[in-house]
Amino acid sequence: MNTFGTLFRLTTFGESHGAAIGGVVDGMPAGVTIDMDFVRSEMARRRPGQSALVTPRSEADEVEFLSGIFEGRSTGTPIGFIIRNTDTRPKDYDDAARWYRPSHADYTYAQKYGLRDYRGGGRASARETAVRVAGGALAKLVLRDEGISVEARLAQVGCEKRAENMQVLIEQVKKEGDSIGGIVSCTITGCPAGLGEPVYGKLHAALGASMLSINACHGFDYGSGFEGVGMKGSEQNDAFVHRPDGTIGTATNHSGGIQGGISNGEPITFRVLFKPTPTILKPQQTVDSEGNEGVLAMKGRHDPCVAVRAVPVVEAMAAMTIVDFLLINACR
Amino acid sequence: MNTFGTLFRLTTFGESHGAAIGGVVDGMPAGVTIDMDFVRSEMARRRPGQSALVTPRSEADEVEFLSGIFEGRSTGTPIGFIIRNTDTRPKDYDDAARWYRPSHADYTYAQKYGLRDYRGGGRASARETAVRVAGGALAKLVLRDEGISVEARLAQVGCEKRAENMQVLIEQVKKEGDSIGGIVSCTITGCPAGLGEPVYGKLHAALGASMLSINACHGFDYGSGFEGVGMKGSEQNDAFVHRPDGTIGTATNHSGGIQGGISNGEPITFRVLFKPTPTILKPQQTVDSEGNEGVLAMKGRHDPCVAVRAVPVVEAMAAMTIVDFLLINACR
Amino acid sequence: MNTFGTLFRLTTFGESHGAAIGGVVDGMPAGVTIDMDFVRSEMARRRPGQSALVTPRSEADEVEFLSGIFEGRSTGTPIGFIIRNTDTRPKDYDDAARWYRPSHADYTYAQKYGLRDYRGGGRASARETAVRVAGGALAKLVLRDEGISVEARLAQVGCEKRAENMQVLIEQVKKEGDSIGGIVSCTITGCPAGLGEPVYGKLHAALGASMLSINACHGFDYGSGFEGVGMKGSEQNDAFVHRPDGTIGTATNHSGGIQGGISNGEPITFRVLFKPTPTILKPQQTVDSEGNEGVLAMKGRHDPCVAVRAVPVVEAMAAMTIVDFLLINACR
Amino acid sequence: MNTFGTLFRLTTFGESHGAAIGGVVDGMPAGVTIDMDFVRSEMARRRPGQSALVTPRSEADEVEFLSGIFEGRSTGTPIGFIIRNTDTRPKDYDDAARWYRPSHADYTYAQKYGLRDYRGGGRASARETAVRVAGGALAKLVLRDEGISVEARLAQVGCEKRAENMQVLIEQVKKEGDSIGGIVSCTITGCPAGLGEPVYGKLHAALGASMLSINACHGFDYGSGFEGVGMKGSEQNDAFVHRPDGTIGTATNHSGGIQGGISNGEPITFRVLFKPTPTILKPQQTVDSEGNEGVLAMKGRHDPCVAVRAVPVVEAMAAMTIVDFLLINACR
Repeated sequence: MNTFGTLFRLTTFGESHGAAIGGVVDGMPAGVTIDMDFVRSEMARRRPGQSALVTPRSEADEVEFLSGIFEGRSTGTPIGFIIRNTDTRPKDYDDAARWYRPSHADYTYAQKYGLRDYRGGGRASARETAVRVAGGALAKLVLRDEGISVEARLAQVGCEKRAENMQVLIEQVKKEGDSIGGIVSCTITGCPAGLGEPVYGKLHAALGASMLSINACHGFDYGSGFEGVGMKGSEQNDAFVHRPDGTIGTATNHSGGIQGGISNGEPITFRVLFKPTPTILKPQQTVDSEGNEGVLAMKGRHDPCVAVRAVPVVEAMAAMTIVDFLLINACR
Repeated sequence: MNTFGTLFRLTTFGESHGAAIGGVVDGMPAGVTIDMDFVRSEMARRRPGQSALVTPRSEADEVEFLSGIFEGRSTGTPIGFIIRNTDTRPKDYDDAARWYRPSHADYTYAQKYGLRDYRGGGRASARETAVRVAGGALAKLVLRDEGISVEARLAQVGCEKRAENMQVLIEQVKKEGDSIGGIVSCTITGCPAGLGEPVYGKLHAALGASMLSINACHGFDYGSGFEGVGMKGSEQNDAFVHRPDGTIGTATNHSGGIQGGISNGEPITFRVLFKPTPTILKPQQTVDSEGNEGVLAMKGRHDPCVAVRAVPVVEAMAAMTIVDFLLINACR
Repeated sequence: MNTFGTLFRLTTFGESHGAAIGGVVDGMPAGVTIDMDFVRSEMARRRPGQSALVTPRSEADEVEFLSGIFEGRSTGTPIGFIIRNTDTRPKDYDDAARWYRPSHADYTYAQKYGLRDYRGGGRASARETAVRVAGGALAKLVLRDEGISVEARLAQVGCEKRAENMQVLIEQVKKEGDSIGGIVSCTITGCPAGLGEPVYGKLHAALGASMLSINACHGFDYGSGFEGVGMKGSEQNDAFVHRPDGTIGTATNHSGGIQGGISNGEPITFRVLFKPTPTILKPQQTVDSEGNEGVLAMKGRHDPCVAVRAVPVVEAMAAMTIVDFLLINACR
Repeated sequence: MNTFGTLFRLTTFGESHGAAIGGVVDGMPAGVTIDMDFVRSEMARRRPGQSALVTPRSEADEVEFLSGIFEGRSTGTPIGFIIRNTDTRPKDYDDAARWYRPSHADYTYAQKYGLRDYRGGGRASARETAVRVAGGALAKLVLRDEGISVEARLAQVGCEKRAENMQVLIEQVKKEGDSIGGIVSCTITGCPAGLGEPVYGKLHAALGASMLSINACHGFDYGSGFEGVGMKGSEQNDAFVHRPDGTIGTATNHSGGIQGGISNGEPITFRVLFKPTPTILKPQQTVDSEGNEGVLAMKGRHDPCVAVRAVPVVEAMAAMTIVDFLLINACR
């Protein structure tokens, strides 16, 4: 269950405050040039500590590749890699060892496993997303060769959709020691028609599962989405038209590039909802593992709006999903 | 890709206008009493032709079980079943053979496979959901023994949330030969804490994929969802409290019963968005398989709001997902 | 667990004395002409009651295809099919309901599931192999287009390797109400180099698992196999040589066409061991479900050497395995 | 395809002469005490360089665990680990870069991927089995708590079955610069009845696939196996009897502890055939990647009989398979 994908597969491991996190990419096509600068730049996009808007935790996030690459190219065998944890200040987490932090995974992990690694969220920490970004960088190298691009952006913070207002809102929430939700939108262009499988392997179902697996994700829609719930069929349907180049396209794209679960060649568009991160500095009512009630006031680092740093993670998950479906579709 | 689930698995087959549709449930626990009246009543809930609000197509939808049941109980071996197609009027689909119906799967299937069964949507038809309901009925029999219930309801039609208005809106849209989107909400109660797997097998990711695989589904959220995007962490976080019976619960349930991807024992709540069905009787611009442009005016039966009949399908998919995770969790 | 394969998948269901057995082939490439006469001829090869050497049980074994085929060709959607059970004489199995037949699955199924369908072996009956042959017939149609052939033959009965002696031995054993083991050998020709996956998906590991899943199979080897255990590396190694047509081949084929788990273009050769069928007419010591000891003398029909009828089953499993790996390999 | 198992899963990576090899164990039950001394002792059993009978290559084979263990116990989250490669003398492999070594994976990998890591066998090297042994050590810790033991031994070298003769034969073959095949036998005791899944997930099919995935494995049988092919049913069948403690057992164990694919509570017995390692020091005819014929005389280290070092690998694969089926069976 720590593996993602069918033919292009990422298996991950690691806790936020253990020795290292890491992963194994299985199914990377052979012969792809591994552009290490690109991998580093992708890692840098997700890394905390880069602006006032995100958590000041600072990790080098250096990816050490251990296998599957020979003379600068992928060999087709699994690419194992690790990212050492270097900034783990365990003292910040004394309270966490005792108290169940509200809306974190502390309580549910304890219920499920009977014990838990309480250091900084353990396996449930957003630190795990660094491994996704590394895997996604490899996937993007495959997509680049196919002329497919994946671009996500912060579309909304709280109820704000204008960039300047989003920034002001995040700074204000941060000052309050609070957090706020947000929405990331993503567009995939250059994707050929025919990706996606009937019936349970619909392309949007796979994209949805990918996105919903990201920490703090609470919702997913594509095409016209929830905001289009009031549309009638006669408005929502995308008329087929001739394109000047002789191919068939659609006049509108309310389908978000996917019809019947299969890509139709139009840009694939979807939105990903992130709840406010549950780590806030305001005091909160909770209980401990003995069942004692109390008030927990967390200290330390926190992200006022996880949606900000989720942008490259959304891209990474989308890129891996598309590569997986390209490989599956190659079998037809 | 026509299989759903990990340990409780439904594999399905069948086109809307072929000889039969059917499925295989693998992983049904042994010894469960198979209540045939219950199965029939579940099938009846989804069946078309029952009210003015849904398509008048009328099928008996009699499930013929072929294996895996002995002396009234499940044996632990796969339960194969078929549902004969009895009302298939092929003459309604002459136009469909030629034209790509806008926002249907006609064009994408043709692109993917190079040929397609154009009779009534073929594999992409909503008729396939009858098999899901049959599988879901078996899953519900397992859940019933565990004290878990799954209940979905029509929450919204277009922008309308009041029941009377929803009905009026559907009738009006039907008269226009048009269709309208809607939202189904679902609540699972009695579910124990601990269901769901880190990291890619989060419970809400699985529920999301289940729902997004249903025909015409365009979005999924859980807990506070998209409508809660403006909440701050201090509002959204669910404080842990003592319940009178000594157990731990949460004061609010913005998490929708799932934290860190794992159920916390509170009711699981989510919403499922359905676009307006693309089958409308109004003329639409489209192209045919030769690339000729033209206007298509569909005749025949259509559902003005597929969300209505999706209610039991949402329940079925949720029930199968929960049974699957119960079985997975039994391994800990 | 009743599903076989990764991209070309067969899911099966059915007990020997239920209403029907059947299966779903998912992953059949689109556009393959479905030669029904060929399917029938394959079914006829496995059918009992055709000679003195096999069980006289007589079933028409008519395969009813329900989906996935349109205008004579596969559509790429799942092919569901059923085979009705027509000759089920339940009275023969009165003793079976009480006694655990030695070396049958009666005891282990009862231990696993707490209950069992005791009619003629239920799910564990060799009747299930009819579904494999139907699935294999579809796979062979794919292979035929690729120029790949799969041919199995009865290589040994007991310690006898000459055809005439094998026949005499089977007749003698049958007269005694006893049974005898045998070995089926199989050769796949025309298979391209490159099929098979490192490390756990080696081609011979997949073939071995396929064969060992057949009822009564007790062993598998490939290439020089167990009989070559005395060879030295200098004898067993297959020297690479130029073929007259400019390609590279091997001077010998002790590797059985597979090196490092991947096909090398030479014929793939393997052997499959079948134990004597446990159904014999001689009295045997056993216990019943209450733990009472007793002597069981089975009546009814039995196969003196299941290896005879296993020949087309071995071919079917091999054909499905090769198609699966062809599809997987298409992704590189 | 570099992942093994269903619920207890090992994913591996690494080439023999890259930076490191490693793996991820997913599905390790929570709360198991991780006995590091035991893991080290298991690694030591497989390590080369320990006696005159095996290759003198010497690696510390220190397993560095990176996650999934907290305060000495498993947490239920994935256990990632790496083993650094320390003794990689690349100069020994100059010839390998050019020539396809007979009966190695050089040619097939080149055919499959279009390029290959030629350093010491790359991914196809037996070095990969160190990761299996590490994963197996974790599995054995689970089995120890369940009272299940797995013990393999070298049963045959060439045609020799007596221990003294086996040793003499290996030394003689080594002196000749040649190699020889062998057979490892394995017994699993304490395994409960009920493990194994109908139809394609039979316990012996899974064990067979596990074993056949080990480098140089050419065959698998269980119970009476190939040597029992001459037995009649009346001899091979295992009569059920009462045991003194009131339980049911079998008088003989020709079934090797598995009936109908499901364990019956008797010891599980099977044999694993290993071909002679293809690395020999004698000159051999071969071709290079340009198609030039030539004679290759390999230098360097080699194992005269890989079956010797395969003993702990067989145990590791068996242990992981049994834990996997214990977890699967817990779902009933």
